[in-house]
Amino acid sequence: MKITQETLDSLKYDASGLIPAVVADAETNEVLMVAYMNKDSLADTVRTGKTHFWSRSRQKYWMKGESSGHTQEVKGIYTDCDMDTLVIKVAQKGAACHNGYRSCFYRKLNDAGEFEVVDERIFDPDEVYGKK
Amino acid sequence: MKITQETLDSLKYDASGLIPAVVADAETNEVLMVAYMNKDSLADTVRTGKTHFWSRSRQKYWMKGESSGHTQEVKGIYTDCDMDTLVIKVAQKGAACHNGYRSCFYRKLNDAGEFEVVDERIFDPDEVYGKK
Repeated sequence: MKITQETLDSLKYDASGLIPAVVADAETNEVLMVAYMNKDSLADTVRTGKTHFWSRSRQKYWMKGESSGHTQEVKGIYTDCDMDTLVIKVAQKGAACHNGYRSCFYRKLNDAGEFEVVDERIFDPDEVYGKK
Repeated sequence: MKITQETLDSLKYDASGLIPAVVADAETNEVLMVAYMNKDSLADTVRTGKTHFWSRSRQKYWMKGESSGHTQEVKGIYTDCDMDTLVIKVAQKGAACHNGYRSCFYRKLNDAGEFEVVDERIFDPDEVYGKK
């Protein structure tokens, strides 16, 4: 998989040099997570075939699954009409969410107008990341 | 459909008061577009059952489909572990993309490392929005 420098440069990054990446399951299209990439993490994602991001809260690069082993193998990279957002289709190993759910979007607005957990954990975060 | 004030307030908005919303087809899970909501447009989305956004480029509210008729009927609203992103599952009338494609993500990174159109237009933007 490759990306030219011109293509990297043609995307629109925000004032912090970031572009949002929606990660979706390549088989089911299910949205697994949304995270942010800069040019370097997108280039690393393409080069290695595994998703890499820039963490805004931790101000560092990370490869998805570097702690948990729950890596994402890239199957396709798409951009939108404005070229300011990416969709990355992946084969997800284990779970995308560090809380132990397959998808980070495990809470749904219910009839009472509140978010409610609608999915089941597939791993125990304490076992995967260690207790604090 | 309803959302409590407490739930509205519990979401994390960025410095401009916005939260990204990934709009996905409720049947196929296909990601159709990504746009931004503030508290008011999310409240309007819930109240009317049709997606409303805040346009960062035009600095105004808009209802998806207000010009084109290509509205999005809300089927479910999800949030992620960090509560700083939404997924809105919808029944899309016509096409989500103002360029005439079903999804805004109609370009895919190809083997040459460039984005290439991989989808077909389902409407002619000039006919729907009028020629300039």
